Formats: sequence, C-alpha cells, structure tokens
Amino acid sequence: MSVQPLLAEIRRNRLLWLLVFVPLLFAAEMAKPEAHTLLFVLSVLAIVPLAALLSHATESVAARTGDAIGGLLNATLGNLTEMVIAITALAAGQYLLVKASIAGVIVTNALFMLGMSFLLGGLKHHSQEFNRVGARFQASLLFLATVALLVPSAVTFADATSGAAFTRTLSLGLALVLIVAYGLGMLFSLKTHREFFGSVAHGDEGESPWPMGLALGTLAAVTVLVALVSHVFVASVQQAAEAFGMTPAFVGFIVVALVGGAAEMASAFSGARKNRLDLSVGIALGSASQIALFVAPMLVLLSYVVGPAPMDLQLWPGAVIMMLIATLTAALVTNGGRSAWFLGVLVVFVYLIFAMTLYLLPPRVTG
Amino acid sequence: MSVQPLLAEIRRNRLLWLLVFVPLLFAAEMAKPEAHTLLFVLSVLAIVPLAALLSHATESVAARTGDAIGGLLNATLGNLTEMVIAITALAAGQYLLVKASIAGVIVTNALFMLGMSFLLGGLKHHSQEFNRVGARFQASLLFLATVALLVPSAVTFADATSGAAFTRTLSLGLALVLIVAYGLGMLFSLKTHREFFGSVAHGDEGESPWPMGLALGTLAAVTVLVALVSHVFVASVQQAAEAFGMTPAFVGFIVVALVGGAAEMASAFSGARKNRLDLSVGIALGSASQIALFVAPMLVLLSYVVGPAPMDLQLWPGAVIMMLIATLTAALVTNGGRSAWFLGVLVVFVYLIFAMTLYLLPPRVTG
Amino acid sequence: MSVQPLLAEIRRNRLLWLLVFVPLLFAAEMAKPEAHTLLFVLSVLAIVPLAALLSHATESVAARTGDAIGGLLNATLGNLTEMVIAITALAAGQYLLVKASIAGVIVTNALFMLGMSFLLGGLKHHSQEFNRVGARFQASLLFLATVALLVPSAVTFADATSGAAFTRTLSLGLALVLIVAYGLGMLFSLKTHREFFGSVAHGDEGESPWPMGLALGTLAAVTVLVALVSHVFVASVQQAAEAFGMTPAFVGFIVVALVGGAAEMASAFSGARKNRLDLSVGIALGSASQIALFVAPMLVLLSYVVGPAPMDLQLWPGAVIMMLIATLTAALVTNGGRSAWFLGVLVVFVYLIFAMTLYLLPPRVTG
Repeated sequence: MSVQPLLAEIRRNRLLWLLVFVPLLFAAEMAKPEAHTLLFVLSVLAIVPLAALLSHATESVAARTGDAIGGLLNATLGNLTEMVIAITALAAGQYLLVKASIAGVIVTNALFMLGMSFLLGGLKHHSQEFNRVGARFQASLLFLATVALLVPSAVTFADATSGAAFTRTLSLGLALVLIVAYGLGMLFSLKTHREFFGSVAHGDEGESPWPMGLALGTLAAVTVLVALVSHVFVASVQQAAEAFGMTPAFVGFIVVALVGGAAEMASAFSGARKNRLDLSVGIALGSASQIALFVAPMLVLLSYVVGPAPMDLQLWPGAVIMMLIATLTAALVTNGGRSAWFLGVLVVFVYLIFAMTLYLLPPRVTG
Repeated sequence: MSVQPLLAEIRRNRLLWLLVFVPLLFAAEMAKPEAHTLLFVLSVLAIVPLAALLSHATESVAARTGDAIGGLLNATLGNLTEMVIAITALAAGQYLLVKASIAGVIVTNALFMLGMSFLLGGLKHHSQEFNRVGARFQASLLFLATVALLVPSAVTFADATSGAAFTRTLSLGLALVLIVAYGLGMLFSLKTHREFFGSVAHGDEGESPWPMGLALGTLAAVTVLVALVSHVFVASVQQAAEAFGMTPAFVGFIVVALVGGAAEMASAFSGARKNRLDLSVGIALGSASQIALFVAPMLVLLSYVVGPAPMDLQLWPGAVIMMLIATLTAALVTNGGRSAWFLGVLVVFVYLIFAMTLYLLPPRVTG
Repeated sequence: MSVQPLLAEIRRNRLLWLLVFVPLLFAAEMAKPEAHTLLFVLSVLAIVPLAALLSHATESVAARTGDAIGGLLNATLGNLTEMVIAITALAAGQYLLVKASIAGVIVTNALFMLGMSFLLGGLKHHSQEFNRVGARFQASLLFLATVALLVPSAVTFADATSGAAFTRTLSLGLALVLIVAYGLGMLFSLKTHREFFGSVAHGDEGESPWPMGLALGTLAAVTVLVALVSHVFVASVQQAAEAFGMTPAFVGFIVVALVGGAAEMASAFSGARKNRLDLSVGIALGSASQIALFVAPMLVLLSYVVGPAPMDLQLWPGAVIMMLIATLTAALVTNGGRSAWFLGVLVVFVYLIFAMTLYLLPPRVTG
C-alpha cells in the first residue's frame, strides 16, 4: 500500500504540519507525566491535524464506495473526532465535559463557523447570495433537533422538583427517539431526497480521493491516535484549565468544539471565500444537527456501557439558553439568503460574548 | 325534515361509525357508574364522531347563510367541542384540566396536526409547495396570539413574588384585550381582507351542504350530546388517568386535544394527501389562533359565572415553554413554503417528545 | 444668523407648538418646586417638541455635511434625547430608570412604532409590500444586538449564584464589545454597504435643510434645554409616578420611550401613510439597534464617570422576556415583506399587554 498520496496531502495542507505535535506529545507524556499544562497544550495542537486527516480519510472512503454507503459513512464519521474525545471523557466519568462539548459543538457550528464564513466570504465578496430553500430547511432541522435535545433540561429547569430518576428515564427515551429520527434523516438525505443536500456531501471536490487501502488504514490508525491523544487531553484538562483560569465548562464548550471542528471549519471557510456559501452553511448546520441527532444520544446510550453511571441529557440553564439563541440566530440569518460581512461580525460577536461569559463564570455555577 | 343526508354522511364517513359508542356510554353510565376507566374510554370514543358531526353541521349552516355570517359561524363554532369540554371542566372546578387543554390544543395543532400533514402529504408527494405569504401571515398571528396569552405566566414565572391578585387582574384585562383582538380579526378575515383566508374557509368543498333544518337540528342536538358526554368524561378522567398512569396534565394536554380535534385533523390530513397543503396549514394554524384569541379568554370570563372561583391564565412553566417552542416551530417550518416528509417526521417527533415528557412528569409538578 | 427657517418650521409642524410648555415648566419649577406631579406632566409635554427639534436640527447638519459625516451624525445623535434623559438619571443614581428606559426604547420601537406604522399604513392602503431583504437584514441586526445585550441578564437569571462582581465585569467587557460592533456597523452602513440603508438615512426628504449656523445653534441650545428639562423630569418622576399609581419600571419602560421617541414616531407614521413602509421599518428597527449597540454600552461606560457606582447591564427577568419577544416579533412580522392593518393591531396589542402588565406589576418585583 503506497502512502504517497498521504505524504502529498501533508505537503499540500499546512494544517497537517501540526502532526509533529503527536510524537512530541507522547514523548512529553513519557518524560513529564505531571506537566499537565504542557500536555494539555500539546494534545490540543495534536488533535487539530489528526481531525483533518480523519476528515480527509473519511471522504476518500466515501468517494470510493459510491453515493449511498459513502454518504452513510460521511454522516456517521463526520464528527468522529468530537465523538472519540467525548467517549474518552465519558469513560473517565467527566460528564460535565461531555455535556459541555455537545452543547459547545452545536453553538460553535451555528455561530462561529457560520459567522466566520459570512465574515471571510464577505471580506472578499461585496454581498453573497445562497440557496435560501436549502438553508432554511437545514436550519429548521437543526432547530427541531436542538429543541428535542433540550426538552429534559427545559423541564428540569422549569420544574426543579422533578427529580433525577425522571430526568434519566426521559433522557434514555429521548435518546432512542433521536436515533430513530437520525436513521430516518439518513434515509431522507441519502435515498429519497438526495438532491436537497447534493452539493454539500463531498466537501472540496478539488481533491482526488485516496486509494481505498490507504484511506481505510489512515482511518483506523488515526482513530487510534485520536483516542490516545484524547486520553492525555482528558487527563490533563482539569489541572491545565485551572492554570489558565478556565472553567471546565469553557474548555468543553469552546476549546473542544474549536479543536474538534478545525478541519470542518477549514472546509467551510474555504467554501465561503470561493463564494460557495451553500457549502459553508451546509457544513456548519449539518454537522450541528448530527451532534444533536446522533452523537448526543449515542453518548447517552454508551454511558450505560462505558461510563461509571448513566448520563442524562440535562444541561445547565446557561447552556440551554445559548443553544436556543444559537439555533434561532442560525435560522434568522440564513433565512434571508443574503449575507454581507457585518452580519458575520455580529454573529461572531455573539459567540465571543458567550465565550467571554463562560470564561468569567464562576466554576460552581455549571456544576 | 329529512334526515336522509345525515344517514348518507354516516354511511360515507367511517369516523362516524364510532357514534355507536354514544348510546353504549350512556348505558354503561347507568349500569356501572363506578367503572371510571371504562366510562373514560367510552367517552373518548364517543366524542370523536360527535366532534366530526358538529364540524359538518357547522359547515353546512355556514354554507347556507352566505359568506359573512357563515364565516362568523365557522370562526366561533370551529372549536365548539373543545369549548364544551372545557366549560364542563370549568363548572367542575377542574382548572388544571381546562388550562392544560388550552395549551394542549395550541401545541397539538401547531406540531401534531401540522407535522402529520407534512408527513402524510410528503409520503404521497415528493416535495410540496404551499403559499408562503398566507402561511407566514397566519404563523405570525398565532405567534402573537400565543405570546399575548403567555404574558401572565411569563411574568409570574420570572417574578415569583407578584402574587395571585395581580395574576387574576392581569388575566381579566388580558381576556378583554384578546376578545377585542378576536373581534377585529373577524372583521379582517371576513370583511376587509377576505382573500387572505379564502381558500381555507369552507373545508372540503367536495361535500354538498345539508339542508338548513337538518344542519341546525344536528348542531343543537349534537352540542347537547357533547355536553353530556363531556360530563361523564370530566367526572371519570381523574381516576381513569391514575389507572392508566397518566397525569391530569397529560390528559388535558394530549388526550383532550387529540380527541376534540379529530374532525379537523381528518380534514387537514385529507387536504395534505390531495396536495392542498395551504388548506392543512390554514386549518392547523387558524384553529390554534382561535383557541388563543377566543376560547381561552371566553373561559376566563365564563369562570366568573360558572366556575367556583375566577380562573387566571397562569400556566405551569413547562407548558409555557412548550407553547412558545410549538409556535416558533410552526413559524419556522411554514416560513420556507416547501415541505418534504422528513420535516413532518421531525415536527411530529418534537410532539412525541413533549407527550413523553408529560407522561413521565410527576403529577405534583404541574399542580 | 437668521432664525426664519426655525420659525417657519414651528408654524408648519404642530408638534412644535408644545414648545410653549418649556417656559411654563421652568416658571412652574421656580414657583412651586414641590408640585412634583405638575412638574412631571409639564416636563413630559416639554420634552416632546424638544426631541422633534433635535431630530430636525441633526438632520439639517447631516444634510449639509455630506453623506459620510452626516450619516455618522445621524447615527450617533439620532437617540440624543433618550441619551440625555438617561445620563441625567444616571447622575442621579436612578439606575432602574436608566435600565428600564434602555429596555423600553427597544421594545417600544420594535412593537409600538412598527405596529402603529403597519396599522396606520394599513388603514389607508389595503395591503402594503416592503423590501423584505432590507427589513430582514435589519431585524437580524436588532435580534443579534439585543441578544448580546441580554447575555448578562440571562446568565444571572439562569444562575442566581453568579454574583455582582461577575455581572459587573461581564457588563464592562460586553460594553466594549458592543461599541466595537457599533463602530464596525457604521463603517458598514456608511462606507462599504451604504446602498442597504440608503432610503432610510435622511428621513422626510420633503423638507429643505436649515442653514448650518442655525442647525448647529439649535442643536446646542436644544440639547441644553433637554438636559434642563430632563433634570426636572428625573427629580419629579418618583413622587409623580406614585401619585399616578405608576411603578418606576412603567415610567422608564413606557413613558420615557414614548416621549423620547415622539419625533421618530412622527416620521415613521408619516412614512407608513405615504406607503413608504421601508422608511418606517428602517426608523423603528434602526433606532432600536442603535440603543442596544451604542446608547446602552455608552451608559455603562459613563456610569464609571458620572454615576455614584458602576452600572451593570443586568435587567429584571420580565424585561428580558419582553425584549426577546419584541425582537423576535419584529423579525417574524417583517419577514414576510407584506403587511395589512390587522398585523399592526396584533403587534400593538402585544405592546399594550406589556404596558398593562408593567402598570399592574407590584413595584418591588422590578427592584
């Protein structure tokens, strides 16, 4: 099996040069297992290129297996990095980190990824039009998926007396409903209504896909590497966060979401600069929907197997408000089908204000 | 007066075959007045065909009296079943049941009726377009009517110290404002801007209207029957709900709304399958607006006459959140003017999750 | 410097005849400094024509200085009246009044000014179309600006334990972010994307601008007069409000907003009756955005200089809910690009219900 295309990709894509931090991280962990801050920074830097590789390998496998299976792979493995990080945190019993990263990826995609796409696209093009019908459809899906995900939190928030057993049962039932919805959603987007999502499926079509063997090998090897790096990340995050004055909520919400989504962001921003905002909107909203409909319920179900105790879907009130605002914002700004740089600025500023709030928030509040 | 058309309608419409449960219910009540669960089930089964008959009789009177008075009748008697059930519960002092059924009809229309219309229409037609301008206008009306209805709950929710006297005064003032708004709304839809609502007014125009005498006689007789059946329903609901493990909130919110709206749903779903989604959207949103602008304030005013004490419009927080989400969802999904089956699936799933939550919720929370 | 055009304007514009109350107010304050109720009524009547003069003078300066500087002036001085009132209240330590007036101007513009424009326009024209793209863009800006403004309140509302120091730091950081956003927004609307806002910038173009000297002189003199009148207003408001049975929240939210915005409302309503709803929507939403992005953060920063203590941006929960509902409503109703009188009625009724609620609310709740 030739690794030629892999090396070519590494030469071409500067993001992948960060791969040098993967061996550095493992070396540092051997040498100084107590240097939590250093290990945290190195693991963050190491995850970014691994996520980019995973994304490229997934797309290559998808391109070689035909539309139906390929779409299925893209749809399930598209957020593989976030999922591996979350499973590692789940196994370590860090449920706050898991929940914060679920909420954070949705908010980050709906505000930061979308807003930066508008901003970067708008700096190059005076005013950009995009397909309103598709964008509205995807924004509706995201809104509905998020609302469904938030029902246990909203009920518990509104009625403080409802109790933990109720929340756990509701979360489990909800997880099953969401997974069925996700399955139907794949039937819809891959089988009956493929044309609604067509332009989004395969990312940057400029690149030629890797050979099957290389792609599968990379997929397997990099998944293992992400798991190993995540292990260090999760083990070091608490002390490192304290050293940087960050709350666990901030780390889960902002850091995990930005790090895990770096590869998708690169695609979305490049689409925006090429005046293909449809692509950017599709990546941002589609990936956020996938977290709500697939990753979050999978993590609830997995918590019964790998976690120390069942995890519910109850988020702290601030996260609920941020998620609702983020998805409503995404629905409002994509609704017009027209964008200019200042719209991007405002959406990104709302994200910055959320990040600032989470950074300043006393840790106990999100507990 | 010939009852021929009535018998013909009963032969034609299988929903009306359930009329057999009306005499069965009265027989059972005579024989076993303590069999609450049986009486509950029979009364539910008996209300469905009576509601369908009421709806048909109202439309026949409306068709014979010309557009203005006909429209007025349709608009005031369209939710007659729900209103008779609610008045019976009001007289029995079951305010939680009354309030839950107000909230439930709005949520059920905006989510279940709309979502099932999208789903059933989408299973037959690949992608359905509907009149965006009309749908948006009606979704805006519903949103505003719901927001107005929710002000007392929101204020009391936000400021727990505001007190019962304040809530009661505010509810009374609000009821008067809403009824004025409703009157102006009828002026608008029947007089000045009839063309906005034209296609919706007369339901399935395939059926020929009954003669006036038969229609009026049916209207009167069936209203009395609904009142009698509602009486049994309200008397049996509490014990029966306990036997089925249902909270009063669940019964009011889900059961009353589904049972009372069965006839309208049959029209909406049949419209959707005939690719007339405008009709379905109009029925679903129009009927929900009518509950907020007319039925709810009428019940507040009536509570001063028939109830043991004045009723306010304060709902429990979970109901407020569900109503806001339902009307926002209706606004978002009708906004695009395009539907496909999966959109319907998601809207119905949000409804299912709400129903599941209400079913699991401990009873005291909604008290 | 000829004051001829000033006198001509006073003869032409009947709103300015209220100027007679300015000397009456100062006379009354000399004669009866304890007659709080009288002073309050007179100061309200005196502010209305001063606000109209300020607005006219600002537009004249703007028209004479060319588009860029003129736009800048219009954008910063457009809410000068509200700002002078708020600064006077700030210096007097009446923070509740300041915050209520910030919230109130946003809600009043988004509901009352917009709704009355729809209603007054709709009474003259059967159905009015307006530029959807522009209106949606402005509604998105207003929604985002309001959301940003509400983050400290939402977080504190959701997490009661977060503490005053946190809220103050967050409010300060937020004020800086909002001012940067405002600066970028001016760059956007005056420089890079002037055509998006073009039709709105100069108000009623029927009037010929005043000579520069007169305009600048009027601007300076009237600002001083507004400050003097505001001083009496703020000093008398508390006792007068009690005499009328009004809470401070009601005065700030409703009275200040209606009084300070009278001149803009006159322009918006006149635009609506001339079937230029674009103008009305632009004034209503643009002025509300300006309060959120410029006036509110300026007041936070100024509180460090002129106030007895730093002011945070934490509003009471009811105000947060009203602001969110008002901006969502504005987004929904402008979304369709079509208006008729009943839509205006409903929007105005939501405002009336808010006003009724604030009037009935016990004073301690908003404390």
